[in-house]
Amino acid sequence: MSGKIAPLAPKNPVKLAPLAGVQMATVEAGIKYAGRKDLLLMVFDEPCSVAGVFTTSKCSSAPVDWCRQTLSGGVRAKALVVNAGNANAFTGLKGAQAVEMTAQAAALACGSAPEEIYLASTGVIGEPLDASSFEGHLKNLHSNCIGDGWQDAAEAIMTTDTYPKLAKAGFELDGKACTINGIAKGSGMIAPDMATMLSFVVTDAPVASPVLQALLSELVVGTFNAVTVDSDTSTSDTLMLFATGSVNADEITSPDDPRIGAFKSALQAVLHDLAMQIVRDGEGATKQVEVHVTGAVDDMSARRIAQSIANSPLVKTAVAGEDANWGRVVMAVGKAGEPADRDLLAISFGDVRVAVSGERDPDYSEDAASAVMREDEITIGVDIGLGNGSAKIWTCDLTKEYVAINGDYRS
Amino acid sequence: MSGKIAPLAPKNPVKLAPLAGVQMATVEAGIKYAGRKDLLLMVFDEPCSVAGVFTTSKCSSAPVDWCRQTLSGGVRAKALVVNAGNANAFTGLKGAQAVEMTAQAAALACGSAPEEIYLASTGVIGEPLDASSFEGHLKNLHSNCIGDGWQDAAEAIMTTDTYPKLAKAGFELDGKACTINGIAKGSGMIAPDMATMLSFVVTDAPVASPVLQALLSELVVGTFNAVTVDSDTSTSDTLMLFATGSVNADEITSPDDPRIGAFKSALQAVLHDLAMQIVRDGEGATKQVEVHVTGAVDDMSARRIAQSIANSPLVKTAVAGEDANWGRVVMAVGKAGEPADRDLLAISFGDVRVAVSGERDPDYSEDAASAVMREDEITIGVDIGLGNGSAKIWTCDLTKEYVAINGDYRS
Repeated sequence: MSGKIAPLAPKNPVKLAPLAGVQMATVEAGIKYAGRKDLLLMVFDEPCSVAGVFTTSKCSSAPVDWCRQTLSGGVRAKALVVNAGNANAFTGLKGAQAVEMTAQAAALACGSAPEEIYLASTGVIGEPLDASSFEGHLKNLHSNCIGDGWQDAAEAIMTTDTYPKLAKAGFELDGKACTINGIAKGSGMIAPDMATMLSFVVTDAPVASPVLQALLSELVVGTFNAVTVDSDTSTSDTLMLFATGSVNADEITSPDDPRIGAFKSALQAVLHDLAMQIVRDGEGATKQVEVHVTGAVDDMSARRIAQSIANSPLVKTAVAGEDANWGRVVMAVGKAGEPADRDLLAISFGDVRVAVSGERDPDYSEDAASAVMREDEITIGVDIGLGNGSAKIWTCDLTKEYVAINGDYRS
Repeated sequence: MSGKIAPLAPKNPVKLAPLAGVQMATVEAGIKYAGRKDLLLMVFDEPCSVAGVFTTSKCSSAPVDWCRQTLSGGVRAKALVVNAGNANAFTGLKGAQAVEMTAQAAALACGSAPEEIYLASTGVIGEPLDASSFEGHLKNLHSNCIGDGWQDAAEAIMTTDTYPKLAKAGFELDGKACTINGIAKGSGMIAPDMATMLSFVVTDAPVASPVLQALLSELVVGTFNAVTVDSDTSTSDTLMLFATGSVNADEITSPDDPRIGAFKSALQAVLHDLAMQIVRDGEGATKQVEVHVTGAVDDMSARRIAQSIANSPLVKTAVAGEDANWGRVVMAVGKAGEPADRDLLAISFGDVRVAVSGERDPDYSEDAASAVMREDEITIGVDIGLGNGSAKIWTCDLTKEYVAINGDYRS
């Protein structure tokens, strides 16, 4: 083992400027943590377009159920309430009641209908969430909302994260400057206790909800759904996208609108940036790893092989040990269950090819491979040699620190 | 973390007596290890019935390819050669050549055809196996074969195992006493470098190969295929069953033979015993865990849910930390993708029910649950509440020691 346990630092920390049409405030509600902000209210000047994607867990949390239900009704968003410290998951009827109470309190504070309130909770599972204090807090939060609150917002939703996660991108629509601001939290993909993945992204561009939903569903595949820390899936994963429409341009109402390209590129950049920040902040991580599979029979097959590699404890511990152990990559390809021919495989670490045609590369240099493994960011390249399918999945290494963080978390 | 890193001891170590019709010998061939036996020759007095099940990996090793090919030809077994230290996997054409050379050398020593030789290798992947010394070794081994060699045999096939694994059972056929002896190795399910799962089981009863194959394929599901250490699958997994037929009784030639019951029960016991020894010797393990899922829509669904729980790093680290963290069990049920209703779930650790009807059990006692978690053997019970499907999967905890063992193994 390298003995290195300091977490990776954020690569390019950014500041977010206010974004037209949205304001926010945070407070120390004392839900679980002492002495830190743990409740966020984000309010839109006018009810705005909204889209969301959520956990695939069959045991989704009460707030996820609420958001799914509300989104399916096709209404707009007036506000978003997020708390950290309690996931309100597996809390039975009490969970649904806490959600309803929170939505009503927020609606009262914002002068809207409860159905225009979106909710997310992250933290411990199975503890009833006491929302009785939320009514007072939300009223105060509404009075204190400011545009310049993104840093505080990103901090308020953290759990085991070691740094707040923010990203932004600009684009033009009808010659007008538009902006996308996003925040996220997550530090295991996913530790259901305290490291649910949440992300909230807002643009000031005018885009209709169905278009937001189509773009989000498409882009999540290669961004948030392409990162894995430990193969575990939270009951609370939530990614939401809002469009305030404050920029004065014609609304994009169709995915076929030719003006959509610039928005889509900018949105992709923000989602990718936030997803990389999450994987880089993986619990106990000392290395960021990109698994790039090419030559599979199709893209879906490449993706499954890449996931098998990225989720393999043996590959991840080898990366932690800075060991160019390509035998474990072979193993992970083999167990994926996808078409693969041992004798056509080629494997690289960074730009060092270690194996080719089903055996060790004759030109393989252990020194060169070891130098790659000592880097903070490592690419594992696998060419299956069968077709044109490719995929990228991002992960981190598996260290003793991960075990320590998760070995006695709840108590 | 409990800080406890001493491996679990074997539960019921047994001695194996000689079994009629088979002899064996071992030698220090110096394949990788110094100062220990690493090459085993097991010779049957007469070519005997044989069956095998092998890894599902798409990148199976050269010896696995050889055995599959030979078995499909329906021939009998004269001898088994096993080496530890080099898996002869991902070794291209050289791998196939080493296999052929070894089979020919063993055939020469035993006076048989190469097709009657079965082979298995375990150890590092991707290093060519130098079999040039095997001819001399195998000749000597054949001269030194004895019946009382089971303990040595079990030791010779070990890699990262902390103890040799042996099991036995007796049964009656036509009033005659019959025996089953088995050995196994494996200490990750599976660390492809050095912890491939291998197991060789021999009975002196007369049973035809197709019957052996039918029983083995049926019984492996609930034994070797129901244990997991780290969800990784070796390129070399091999389980073989031989019947010398030395006991003087009419051969069992059909799975419908009414006399098969006693044999099947005894075989099940040996396979279960060996599988439990492997999971208990899981790399870094301090706890043996049984995951028992009931109430799923069918048995296969129960099995997938149990596997999702048993392979979850978050569940396994919680067990290592002696933390009755049932929220992570909910998470693992949720991510399995099988039918489940959050509000019908019940979860127990040992005999302490911690959650019921989708929320914390009102009678839950943290002290009682913690006492269960401090045991060496823990049962996680999950009732899905939907149907009658059930399954058991066995695993171990995930400790810092696992990361240490696998973090810098190859070098």
